[in-house]
Amino acid sequence: MPSPTVKIDAYRAPAGRIIGAALTYNKAYERLAYLTDRIGNRLSGSANLERAIAWAVAEMTKDGLDNVHPEKVMVPHWVRGDESLELVTPVSLKLSMLGLGNSIATPAAGITSEVVVVQDFAELDALGERVRGKIVLYNAPFTNYGATVQYRLNGASRAARYGAVAALVRSITPVSLQTPHTGAMNYDPQQPKIPTAAITLEAADLLQRLYDKGEHPVVRLKMEAKFLPDAESANVVAELKGSERPDEIVVIGGHLDSWDVGQGAHDDGGSCIAVWEAIRLLKELGLRPRRTIRVVLFTNEENGTRGGNGYLDAHRNELAKHVFAIESDSGIYRPEGLALAETAPPLVRSNLTEIAKLLSGIRADAISENGGGADIGPLMREGVVGANLEVDGSHYFDIHHTQADTLDKISPRDLSACVATLAVFAYTIADVDLR
Amino acid sequence: MPSPTVKIDAYRAPAGRIIGAALTYNKAYERLAYLTDRIGNRLSGSANLERAIAWAVAEMTKDGLDNVHPEKVMVPHWVRGDESLELVTPVSLKLSMLGLGNSIATPAAGITSEVVVVQDFAELDALGERVRGKIVLYNAPFTNYGATVQYRLNGASRAARYGAVAALVRSITPVSLQTPHTGAMNYDPQQPKIPTAAITLEAADLLQRLYDKGEHPVVRLKMEAKFLPDAESANVVAELKGSERPDEIVVIGGHLDSWDVGQGAHDDGGSCIAVWEAIRLLKELGLRPRRTIRVVLFTNEENGTRGGNGYLDAHRNELAKHVFAIESDSGIYRPEGLALAETAPPLVRSNLTEIAKLLSGIRADAISENGGGADIGPLMREGVVGANLEVDGSHYFDIHHTQADTLDKISPRDLSACVATLAVFAYTIADVDLR
Repeated sequence: MPSPTVKIDAYRAPAGRIIGAALTYNKAYERLAYLTDRIGNRLSGSANLERAIAWAVAEMTKDGLDNVHPEKVMVPHWVRGDESLELVTPVSLKLSMLGLGNSIATPAAGITSEVVVVQDFAELDALGERVRGKIVLYNAPFTNYGATVQYRLNGASRAARYGAVAALVRSITPVSLQTPHTGAMNYDPQQPKIPTAAITLEAADLLQRLYDKGEHPVVRLKMEAKFLPDAESANVVAELKGSERPDEIVVIGGHLDSWDVGQGAHDDGGSCIAVWEAIRLLKELGLRPRRTIRVVLFTNEENGTRGGNGYLDAHRNELAKHVFAIESDSGIYRPEGLALAETAPPLVRSNLTEIAKLLSGIRADAISENGGGADIGPLMREGVVGANLEVDGSHYFDIHHTQADTLDKISPRDLSACVATLAVFAYTIADVDLR
Repeated sequence: MPSPTVKIDAYRAPAGRIIGAALTYNKAYERLAYLTDRIGNRLSGSANLERAIAWAVAEMTKDGLDNVHPEKVMVPHWVRGDESLELVTPVSLKLSMLGLGNSIATPAAGITSEVVVVQDFAELDALGERVRGKIVLYNAPFTNYGATVQYRLNGASRAARYGAVAALVRSITPVSLQTPHTGAMNYDPQQPKIPTAAITLEAADLLQRLYDKGEHPVVRLKMEAKFLPDAESANVVAELKGSERPDEIVVIGGHLDSWDVGQGAHDDGGSCIAVWEAIRLLKELGLRPRRTIRVVLFTNEENGTRGGNGYLDAHRNELAKHVFAIESDSGIYRPEGLALAETAPPLVRSNLTEIAKLLSGIRADAISENGGGADIGPLMREGVVGANLEVDGSHYFDIHHTQADTLDKISPRDLSACVATLAVFAYTIADVDLR
């Protein structure tokens, strides 16, 4: 790495004020409690999401932030409807499940069929046409999210290729207390669409045992899931205007939508509140950097990324003015630093590593690799340097996309530390010349 | 402690054979899989429990065990029926719950009332008549089971004393993924009966937050729970007859009934299979101690202890011949040894501590204190020396009385080690003179 060109000594005093304030009197937890307890989960197309958007705009305006406004984005409107899964052979048993986002429905009477259990795509391919007319269960043990989520994303169409009539997926999680995890899936346009749902680790293991014993387990899957017409939604924008180069922009963002279960606390309400509180706190402290810090609360990250794409579309004319983008979407746990995109110039990495030293007192000073995010992805593909807030994610996938993603899982201390980390990075990056 | 009088050298060889066999070719896991996957949970009065009893008698007979028979016991027949809880003010939200065993129903329309949240009985007493007409939520953080379960057992009647119309209890567990835990409750005959249910930690914390903010949360509780007439059930008895003093008895037992959720795997199917396999293995190894080892699979431990009391009633005439009783009902985890009753004579403790050395190779050689159990409690109160299998219980209450008490939570290795531990203790105790 080249030697850093930024001089951080001038930032020790403001960083100290930011960290001290964030750890003692930030408003984030109270706001997050309102979002989670009084508004609740926020799937695209839901009234809750639109209430959250209106509330955020109103509160940000009250905070006196700059340029507060919603930016209209049309979003997919998938609704779950009633759904159920039961084992009918060799014993009768209700199984806990959650349909996967974007899935089609079953016929009203459900789909009743034998389950074929595979642990990976290779096993499916080896069975080939023998799964025709059957329900394929992917019982892939959790390794890491990126690898294991492939079964949730692509499992239905891979099974449909061989004539399967539905697909079940072991929930993408290392642990379970009969906890199903939903999430998006994608249909391959080349294959027939079949309904698909996640089941718990317990149910998956039960079906595996019955299958392995030659018991030919049969289940009945019922789902009413469907798409309604696209709904109007919005990204929420608020700024702390730059003092010298207000047209140059550092974006910090999270997504305000969530799945239709739990409270969307870690994913991603907490991040929305944290990025918002970061600039509110800077304003309160009278710390206005040279460039503009723009908070974006994206809509529809979970099942469409229309918010991230819509932001790019709406801001193409100022794309060159986007000097940096930070996304937070890995839960609100103890912050570790930033993960920086591989495409970032070496001097940027070097300077960020220097800036991160301001956060060593709260151990959030790591600059790691492979940074990015779904919502800033469109910006990054256009050349904007991106990063994401890194946190201790060791328990994120325990509750990810479940009824258990609730406020009690977020420590106020961790939320405060995330606010501090985001505010220090955003302030400093918006003030210095990284290149 | 007095010096031990037992000489364990003669038991090293049989203990070695038992441990070796238990760790390599015991049948316990396969049997437990049948019990959990093919029979399922087994509440008193259910067809499942009676199927489990009939299956155990048939299989024990096939095993060639001695004196295999059911011993009729009439059991309470509580049924849950449909049940639900929803938050209606300040927002509408379904809350995950499980009615408590023995609870009465609500009226068909449910009970809709404001929730008053207390963290302990002292807070309730301080509120006194101010809870009249309201629903009391006990949001007591988990400390240990014995302390915290008081709210589940006695909370309804304590609240009814002040005119509360229903009682909710934070589930008795340290962790939760929106996981409600059922369990028995008792009505104080001096107080009006009010319906009562457990809610998840997430729901309890939500209600606490709303209550603390002065939001006056209102919930609607609906429960159909009721008692049907007592049902016929049975304890299952099987023996390995003693070679010299067959009339002298060492009881080893667990309970075959469970709650009506999950599979009753840890609680207490695994123990039933383990005590059973202990004597089957001894028989297979040709190891017949001088006294009789009697396996008892008790019925109705969970909501009545009619099995434990029924056993005492049926065997009063041979009470003096009961030289020892071991209960296993703390889940099937890594065995640590036996917990011995405080009433045990010092020489018994001393001799058991000596015998336990035979299990040091599998680290199951601890003789701890305060032993006993619900099902052997009636025997112990009549003077029989009792103990219970001690296991590493650090995760037991995560799944206790929940949908997540399933076979996947039991390690075959732990089950084998429990079989080894029970078989070595039972064999040795039945062969030596402990006093």
